Amino acid sequence: MSPHGSGNARPLALVVLAAGKGTRLTATEDTPPKVLVECLGVPLIEHLRRAVSRLGPTRTAVVTGHKAEIVDAWLGEHWPEATPVLQQPQLGTGHALQLAMAAIPDFEGDVVVVYGDVPQLSPSDLELLLRRHRELAADATVLTGITDDPHALGRILRYEDGRFCRIVEAKDAADRPEILAIKEFNSGIYAFDARTLRPAIAALTSDNAQGELYATDAVRHIADAGNRVALVVAQHPDALRGVNDWAELADAYGLLRRRIAADHMSRGVTIVDPDTTVIEADVQIEAGARILPFTYIERGCKIGRGAEVGPYARLRGKAVLEAGAQIGNFVEVKNSHIGPGAKAKHLTYLGDASVGDGANVGCGVITANYDGKNKHKTEIGPRASIGSGTVLVAPVKVGDGGTTGANAVVTAGKDVPPGATVVGVPARVLGETREPKAASDTEEAAG
Amino acid sequence: MSPHGSGNARPLALVVLAAGKGTRLTATEDTPPKVLVECLGVPLIEHLRRAVSRLGPTRTAVVTGHKAEIVDAWLGEHWPEATPVLQQPQLGTGHALQLAMAAIPDFEGDVVVVYGDVPQLSPSDLELLLRRHRELAADATVLTGITDDPHALGRILRYEDGRFCRIVEAKDAADRPEILAIKEFNSGIYAFDARTLRPAIAALTSDNAQGELYATDAVRHIADAGNRVALVVAQHPDALRGVNDWAELADAYGLLRRRIAADHMSRGVTIVDPDTTVIEADVQIEAGARILPFTYIERGCKIGRGAEVGPYARLRGKAVLEAGAQIGNFVEVKNSHIGPGAKAKHLTYLGDASVGDGANVGCGVITANYDGKNKHKTEIGPRASIGSGTVLVAPVKVGDGGTTGANAVVTAGKDVPPGATVVGVPARVLGETREPKAASDTEEAAG
Amino acid sequence: MSPHGSGNARPLALVVLAAGKGTRLTATEDTPPKVLVECLGVPLIEHLRRAVSRLGPTRTAVVTGHKAEIVDAWLGEHWPEATPVLQQPQLGTGHALQLAMAAIPDFEGDVVVVYGDVPQLSPSDLELLLRRHRELAADATVLTGITDDPHALGRILRYEDGRFCRIVEAKDAADRPEILAIKEFNSGIYAFDARTLRPAIAALTSDNAQGELYATDAVRHIADAGNRVALVVAQHPDALRGVNDWAELADAYGLLRRRIAADHMSRGVTIVDPDTTVIEADVQIEAGARILPFTYIERGCKIGRGAEVGPYARLRGKAVLEAGAQIGNFVEVKNSHIGPGAKAKHLTYLGDASVGDGANVGCGVITANYDGKNKHKTEIGPRASIGSGTVLVAPVKVGDGGTTGANAVVTAGKDVPPGATVVGVPARVLGETREPKAASDTEEAAG
Repeated sequence: MSPHGSGNARPLALVVLAAGKGTRLTATEDTPPKVLVECLGVPLIEHLRRAVSRLGPTRTAVVTGHKAEIVDAWLGEHWPEATPVLQQPQLGTGHALQLAMAAIPDFEGDVVVVYGDVPQLSPSDLELLLRRHRELAADATVLTGITDDPHALGRILRYEDGRFCRIVEAKDAADRPEILAIKEFNSGIYAFDARTLRPAIAALTSDNAQGELYATDAVRHIADAGNRVALVVAQHPDALRGVNDWAELADAYGLLRRRIAADHMSRGVTIVDPDTTVIEADVQIEAGARILPFTYIERGCKIGRGAEVGPYARLRGKAVLEAGAQIGNFVEVKNSHIGPGAKAKHLTYLGDASVGDGANVGCGVITANYDGKNKHKTEIGPRASIGSGTVLVAPVKVGDGGTTGANAVVTAGKDVPPGATVVGVPARVLGETREPKAASDTEEAAG
Repeated sequence: MSPHGSGNARPLALVVLAAGKGTRLTATEDTPPKVLVECLGVPLIEHLRRAVSRLGPTRTAVVTGHKAEIVDAWLGEHWPEATPVLQQPQLGTGHALQLAMAAIPDFEGDVVVVYGDVPQLSPSDLELLLRRHRELAADATVLTGITDDPHALGRILRYEDGRFCRIVEAKDAADRPEILAIKEFNSGIYAFDARTLRPAIAALTSDNAQGELYATDAVRHIADAGNRVALVVAQHPDALRGVNDWAELADAYGLLRRRIAADHMSRGVTIVDPDTTVIEADVQIEAGARILPFTYIERGCKIGRGAEVGPYARLRGKAVLEAGAQIGNFVEVKNSHIGPGAKAKHLTYLGDASVGDGANVGCGVITANYDGKNKHKTEIGPRASIGSGTVLVAPVKVGDGGTTGANAVVTAGKDVPPGATVVGVPARVLGETREPKAASDTEEAAG
Repeated sequence: MSPHGSGNARPLALVVLAAGKGTRLTATEDTPPKVLVECLGVPLIEHLRRAVSRLGPTRTAVVTGHKAEIVDAWLGEHWPEATPVLQQPQLGTGHALQLAMAAIPDFEGDVVVVYGDVPQLSPSDLELLLRRHRELAADATVLTGITDDPHALGRILRYEDGRFCRIVEAKDAADRPEILAIKEFNSGIYAFDARTLRPAIAALTSDNAQGELYATDAVRHIADAGNRVALVVAQHPDALRGVNDWAELADAYGLLRRRIAADHMSRGVTIVDPDTTVIEADVQIEAGARILPFTYIERGCKIGRGAEVGPYARLRGKAVLEAGAQIGNFVEVKNSHIGPGAKAKHLTYLGDASVGDGANVGCGVITANYDGKNKHKTEIGPRASIGSGTVLVAPVKVGDGGTTGANAVVTAGKDVPPGATVVGVPARVLGETREPKAASDTEEAAG
């Protein structure tokens, strides 16, 4: 009978290794620790947190080291169920594993070991690892990948019948081309039975050139002791690599960008050309919205049903587009609320603004939201019509149905009354000045 | 002697299956039927129509079903030589094939069966299918593809000598990994000899879980009857997949986008970076034109010899650039005619406008073409110089050699006389006002 | 003992074949010869020059033919150590090799033969070729590539033990599918021992359909004479193809674009999304700078530490950003100097301008640098604040700490005094006019 027979009810502990400094990602002293470097709007470890959370762990230990206080603070706010475990000094992955297991001394069940700097790890590969580990009742299971050239990664040696033989580090095989020719590599991501793992990590020694303890040696000990080591080949081998430099960060960015786009499309969002569209994490888009090419939507934006964004549109943090709103080319929207059916289709900047239902913001309109010291709000009422080239100097309001003329400058505090038309630099209400009427003809550009 | 010996003279019927609803592409009730969903400016079925038309069919039957009246109307307008065949209810691909063949009861020759939702189908693979079918004098020929993981697609079983054995649906092989491991899949695209096809589809039965008739069973009947079933492996297996959801539509978009760009380049057009350039269908570009990165050119635009477009330029429907015209960064052109050698190089919107020979449109120029109700025209004469930040409120004309000052607002109907200079908000002709001359120095931004 | 035992001290001659016309890249008579066609800001041959220069050649012969005087002039300026060798008429690659070797009659050592139209050639593959050629003490070494379908390229036939047998041109194997099925192709790039090469090229004959002399025949002669021909498989087979048409130029562009981005990232530059970023050759970016998506940086730009560029930013020739400068969305910068910490974040054109330390350029600002005849300079002083929609008509200066109002037009020569505020069209200094103060509140847009 399988020792793992209890299936999903069997407890699961996650160990996340997140102590690294990430020297090659650290341009200056004030840059964040590696796992808090941002990718598509959230830290690397947040992507990992989302992937592993699907496994439903009962315990989570995160091993921190470099700038541990900053990582611990992030964990406290964003991953409160995780137990931070300080690794100081950092003596290798085996050492980190020893500390993590010591932090959950009473834990019995499966232990999955992952890295905080593998943001693009596929949730389905993680689930595959754990499922196979349990189905096979393995003592240790290694998640492997197959690629044409694993370069510096450890190679997986199998016996002729396919069973695990051992892991050989690339640097230990420099003069053995037959080993280097092996295309199956060790991801460093494992599932263990806690009962087998504890004695295996207790037996680790640092008798190597670096004087460190390695998690791979724990796998070797388990195999040497005659326990069962299984292998699971990942379906997304590109998603197993750690992020150690800017190029690897860019690779992870590309994978996550495509995955985020695919998720939106699977829920009924049209993304016309995912290759030329960037959508960060934590963007809400309702089914039926259309995202045109060359669009960049940052974290925290919300887009309603039937809204259309792009091409060449940039939605920044907290931009909210209600149903049927349209944001067109060369338009930037930041921290603004765009009402149902409202439009801003060309060469416009809306910052700290609200645009009412059905309002039309012409071409080349600017909300001047910054006075050199503070940001101020612009309110554009429902059905208002903002003429092309208008600058709205915040704080300012355009009333319901109000209109501004082309190249008008509506100065701070000089609100446009509902239904009124203003023109000129600075803008004056028509009928209250001697300004000729010609410039007021609700001029605006439209597509 | 080959029964197909007559070569190209042998009649060809096309059967296009276009009855599907495309539930996953249908956001709301008023969305079009699946085959009329747009991709790069034209419906899916229009891409398919262009691919299959190269085969020179003598008869074409298009099986419609979901929203058939809309598809039929489109066919009447855009594919008049096609015979619409109503499939109501939709009882499977075999049923569709029965109806199509019943609609061309007198036809003798080859029958090629394709799908209306495979817009990216490679014309060369289609030609390969038909050519091999005829060369081999086959009764049925299956177009297959080879891919690492065909997922849910039917697998091709071959005898050891490579001959066709049968097609096994993936769902019928759930417990047969040796079948699922086969990398050759059935595209569902076939060539038949009409004489063999008719009895084969007459023998179809619906004794399956779905109660439907399947075209694959017709292939099986033909093989079982001892007739010759051939296999042709497509050179573009990625181009065989039907479009069933937004992600698959995006994949087809990517393939077609690259193919359109390659076609233009093969005719002498420079596309500096096809990876970051979107050119829709039905764009005319003459040899010697240059398209710079991050450019988006929509259906119906025309670009003359030596013209330069981009980077970050968007040409919308009916934009026409004559020889040597230049449209630069962050410029949108819609329904406008840009004369020979005319330029608009920065941050500009030209809508419903004409720009004369050699005119220079400065930076930040806006044609305010919409008065809230109607669109109006702007005419910029030859050799005119439009100052930076000018708003031209349509309808309006700038005469031959006319000039506008920076941030001028030329109001509707207040045409700029030939050779005159206007400045201010609203713009007045210099010399006719007390306006100081300073603003009039033909200011304009240029690269 | 190896005849090549002297290692790096052994002399190296480069032969660059650059005589081709490039008919399919030549739109008009005034286009440059093929090797001078630009790709990412520099000619094709300049990319090649950089790749081969790493080999440290002692002699370099460049064979020119089509528009030889133009290529020779370029060589004189950019590759002075190269000896131009005129090939007139052009009677094949073997003929070119004869002329090149005749131009260095006294040379003894290794000869590496490359093509001027292979800009994307990998420096590491070149080094691999030469290193293996020397290690193996070969008389001739062929750089080969492996690809699924080499199409029209010559195929490499090997003996069973892997040794070189011969090269078969695809056109000579039209009826031999077993040859066409070979996936290893001849790149046409070779290393030779000069002593073996000279008699081999002397023996070339033109008894073929084209009546030309072929370099591949020299390889054959060397093998037939019982000398040693080695094979080296390139690690970047995509980078071996010559550029013969616009599509191949675009492919080379894509490869070089990714390589340039990787080089910057390896030195500590953040490129958030290399897939949607274009950086040409000869751009200097300091570690710690951040390049956001949809950015296009042209040749000759310099970007300082901590600067941020994009998204949707275009930096043109000679744009210089000092440390901490920020250039944001829909902003074009040309031939301008942006001081430390200065910002221009939205919808702006800066041409022929200088922006002082810490200055803020608002949204929609335009430097009108062109008066229809000449370009003029704009100087924006330190800590100046340029209001949204301002047009600065060059030549003009804004003094230290000066401010412009929204939609102001600062006319040519009407400099803004230090600390002063100007408003209006045309702009006047506040306090010197009756203009109301409202428009002057240092309005500007900010992110």
